[in-house]
Amino acid sequence: MSEVEIEPVGQTVTQQLIDTYADLSGDYNPIHVDPEAGMKSPFKSTIAHGPISLQPLFVAITRWQGGETITPGSRLSVSYRRPVRPGDTITCVQTQVTDDSGAMEIGFECRNQNEEAVIVGTLMVQAS
Amino acid sequence: MSEVEIEPVGQTVTQQLIDTYADLSGDYNPIHVDPEAGMKSPFKSTIAHGPISLQPLFVAITRWQGGETITPGSRLSVSYRRPVRPGDTITCVQTQVTDDSGAMEIGFECRNQNEEAVIVGTLMVQAS
Repeated sequence: MSEVEIEPVGQTVTQQLIDTYADLSGDYNPIHVDPEAGMKSPFKSTIAHGPISLQPLFVAITRWQGGETITPGSRLSVSYRRPVRPGDTITCVQTQVTDDSGAMEIGFECRNQNEEAVIVGTLMVQAS
Repeated sequence: MSEVEIEPVGQTVTQQLIDTYADLSGDYNPIHVDPEAGMKSPFKSTIAHGPISLQPLFVAITRWQGGETITPGSRLSVSYRRPVRPGDTITCVQTQVTDDSGAMEIGFECRNQNEEAVIVGTLMVQAS
């Protein structure tokens, strides 16, 4: 079980993608959709909605699990570390695997193009 | 700290919303976008991409935290329990609060219109 190898998945975030997500979610907070408001914020830019940066992580996990959804019973923990801005490319990579009695814990990091962690997380899966 | 009251947030998922999310994420797995493939699957329907069902949870948390993003350092754990299909209305509600030395753990459930849990989760926040 310890030779887990999860293919990294990347995605570039654009303002258009953020705007589409605003339509989709109904979350039109100016920090996401108004570049002027973003410039005046501590982030000095608009930032992506939280679930957007999770997308490469979901794709990486579901591809690795070989299914169409994250296997039921899996538990995903994520911690947001840095904001994601338009133009950022986020790549999610596997960092470690801990194989414990009956359960496996897989560490992940989603990093921007400067190799800074934007999301750090773990996936717990039951051994099959 | 224990009188936390988080306003429930709801969202109805449609096939159009799922299709938009496919464009956004590049994830065109037939289980999400092809109703015929969905009908033939064990789910008997297309199902939403994982991050879609998280959206009401993110909105509930950010509104409660009073900011524009989930407070850095917060740790969100989610476990997927049931698929979300077009037509489902997902509502995320706070279930419990545990106030522990220096950290607070808030339990969440995202339920469909039949009161079935589709996502169960916790948010850990450092006491300020």
